[in-house]
Amino acid sequence: MIPIDFTHAPDRESWVDSANQLETDFPIQNLPFAVFHTGDDDRRIGVGIGDQILDLKHCANHGLLAEEFVEPARQDVLNGLMGLGPSQRIELRQAISQLLHVSTEADRSTLEDGLHFQDAVEFSLPCQIHDYTDFYASIFHATNVGSMFRPNNPLLPNYKHIPIGYHGRASSIVVSGTDLVRPVGQKAPAEEGQGPTRSPAALLDYELEVGFYVAQGNRLGTTIPIDQAEQHLFGMCLVNDWSARDLQKWEYQPLGPFLAKSFATTVSPWVVTMEALAPFRVAEYQRPEGDPQPLDYLSSSENSSSGGVDIQLMVSLSSQQMRDRGLPAERLSQTRFTNMYWTIAQILTHHASNGCNLQPGDLMASGTVSGPNRNERGSMIELTWNGDASNPTPGTDRTPLILPTGEERKFLADGDELILHGFCKNEQYRRIGFGQCRGTVQPAI
Amino acid sequence: MIPIDFTHAPDRESWVDSANQLETDFPIQNLPFAVFHTGDDDRRIGVGIGDQILDLKHCANHGLLAEEFVEPARQDVLNGLMGLGPSQRIELRQAISQLLHVSTEADRSTLEDGLHFQDAVEFSLPCQIHDYTDFYASIFHATNVGSMFRPNNPLLPNYKHIPIGYHGRASSIVVSGTDLVRPVGQKAPAEEGQGPTRSPAALLDYELEVGFYVAQGNRLGTTIPIDQAEQHLFGMCLVNDWSARDLQKWEYQPLGPFLAKSFATTVSPWVVTMEALAPFRVAEYQRPEGDPQPLDYLSSSENSSSGGVDIQLMVSLSSQQMRDRGLPAERLSQTRFTNMYWTIAQILTHHASNGCNLQPGDLMASGTVSGPNRNERGSMIELTWNGDASNPTPGTDRTPLILPTGEERKFLADGDELILHGFCKNEQYRRIGFGQCRGTVQPAI
Repeated sequence: MIPIDFTHAPDRESWVDSANQLETDFPIQNLPFAVFHTGDDDRRIGVGIGDQILDLKHCANHGLLAEEFVEPARQDVLNGLMGLGPSQRIELRQAISQLLHVSTEADRSTLEDGLHFQDAVEFSLPCQIHDYTDFYASIFHATNVGSMFRPNNPLLPNYKHIPIGYHGRASSIVVSGTDLVRPVGQKAPAEEGQGPTRSPAALLDYELEVGFYVAQGNRLGTTIPIDQAEQHLFGMCLVNDWSARDLQKWEYQPLGPFLAKSFATTVSPWVVTMEALAPFRVAEYQRPEGDPQPLDYLSSSENSSSGGVDIQLMVSLSSQQMRDRGLPAERLSQTRFTNMYWTIAQILTHHASNGCNLQPGDLMASGTVSGPNRNERGSMIELTWNGDASNPTPGTDRTPLILPTGEERKFLADGDELILHGFCKNEQYRRIGFGQCRGTVQPAI
Repeated sequence: MIPIDFTHAPDRESWVDSANQLETDFPIQNLPFAVFHTGDDDRRIGVGIGDQILDLKHCANHGLLAEEFVEPARQDVLNGLMGLGPSQRIELRQAISQLLHVSTEADRSTLEDGLHFQDAVEFSLPCQIHDYTDFYASIFHATNVGSMFRPNNPLLPNYKHIPIGYHGRASSIVVSGTDLVRPVGQKAPAEEGQGPTRSPAALLDYELEVGFYVAQGNRLGTTIPIDQAEQHLFGMCLVNDWSARDLQKWEYQPLGPFLAKSFATTVSPWVVTMEALAPFRVAEYQRPEGDPQPLDYLSSSENSSSGGVDIQLMVSLSSQQMRDRGLPAERLSQTRFTNMYWTIAQILTHHASNGCNLQPGDLMASGTVSGPNRNERGSMIELTWNGDASNPTPGTDRTPLILPTGEERKFLADGDELILHGFCKNEQYRRIGFGQCRGTVQPAI
């Protein structure tokens, strides 16, 4: 695990005033990375600080970074920095923390020249995502969804032994703020003897997920032992795994979800480093009595008590009518990443356990993060129980969601904006935020 | 469809003598692309001609290509050439065909300086494969495999309506000649009440597939109409989709194959262009009476009679013992790509039908190519009927394969080399070969 050092001290302040406000996502203890541009400028790497972003290429060009960081900091994607070793990553964090520390007078005007208001820049994807893999690591989500389709057998026999995952589509990953077009696709025959139909997805859903980016990878044919997995994690982000449930139901047997997912996946622009998250590592999910222990290759000896990351997660929705009336987005659910059955280290180790090579910038997403309670469900299909008000189940509220405008929602409507937000906070350390992951549904074309 | 022009004329000869031999895979009518290097040289694009490869970067550097081709021809991957428009691709083919034509005297010595024997070079992956998707487009394969696991219901209801596919792992795609390490993974509990175990895959298999690379892509949120699909196909190759059946059986529910496939996928070095294949376009698979017609978006008005590609495909195996004794590889099966239920145009159009963006260099594979007869089965699990000699089915020979050394095979053994080969040949035109796609199984580590 990454040691807690001076960069995490809660009383540490920056000369960027907005970073010292208690409710900011980006105090000097965070220092997340993003890729941005202003107007017609080239894309460059930046570091979030308060309401501003520090241009790391500018810092590299003006001699403010050590030689070893100059080339990767001048790239237009984070892959170079992601490929650094663990000790270099700590060194870079400490150097940036010192540049932004309130006591730093030298080079202040050069640094100020490299600052931009976050509101005034455009964000891009933070790195070249060579491969994207989506998991299914919340047992609450897996059980909820399984209950709807297999009431007597919600959880399949492999679930507690394998971090279930599938390869996703990398090309259609977009950065927060990108609109998504409602997909059109095949749907199951309405009645026996009829054929399938094709029309815009009616059951368009979101999935609240947390993603992580791979740091250094492994060569094809080699594995990453669980006790080394943490060294291969670069940082985390928010992911909205948009899903067309009606397309998914018809297409997914026997090879898994395909076009029901590949029309768009939205990630937050900020990558919160594992270094920044060090004070928020907590015990991993405690398996209930009677659950099997993971096989040896997924059992960490060293870090087993701190495989979790305590991220608080929120989903809000804003309909076109709500925005037209000036109403704020409506909170749909709130949960914690500590509810996950599998840790991010187990997910990474499992992925490479067959010799599959991982590369810096690969994205792995957790799968929908749902908790045990109703208000902790991370997708619309769980919140509205498949939109099925006519088929009540004891203990489950299956009525549609009602928005402040009186609009009903079983699934997403055109014009709906979905907003994911996440942050870490405990009594001892400063709040470490992830910013937002937003996307608005546009009509099918 | 691409017109047949002077480059396809069967009596056209090259000044590279080996290209004029009848049995070569690479006559002047083929001109496939590859990426190669010699010794410590940089990687560069080459064109296959007889037993040689013509260095396209060398040609670009010496003024032998039109200005529009110079930059993409000097890249170390084919993506730039793949992104050219359809008429440019024909123009480039015609120009290369002229450079290599027997009548060409000008620049002959410059051209000769750019020739290398194929035996003397190393091949790399031909392009950066951003995303890889594997399909399941042979109804004979789907029925064979389905019969083993669901005897009463081998084909799922969606099969005849949707080209079923799943996202694959791009990072572990390797070029022919790369050894693959037998993967280790979880296997289902041997008996009820026991837990799963983890060990080297015992049921390691190959899958004979044909792949195609995307030419120009589409923007996210747009589709590719079926009548434009052919313009987005760049060329074809051979693919071995190595599969660990025991890992697959335990992991694949509910999200599809994952680690059972992602340890390695082998592609042939040569990309045979759609231009070269023009004389071998044939009627697509004729659906039996009673089968549903595809939905409109998958029904081509213009090209419906020539959606197929008549590629003859062969699989051979050479065990370590066979090589030690100097025995040639043993033919396991032989089939034709005309057996596919879905065409490559339907596959591409379906992939983009939800607005998913395709990019030049994306690889789509057909899924195992099996035909209706026993000797046309494209995987070991089909040839040996899941290695299950104890459970014979009328009309099916379930005994293990016997190699010329007397060795038995139900699945692949360490040291086994698998060799895929393919070519097009008809009475009117020269043989257009794909070369080979080879890989040898190394023991698990």
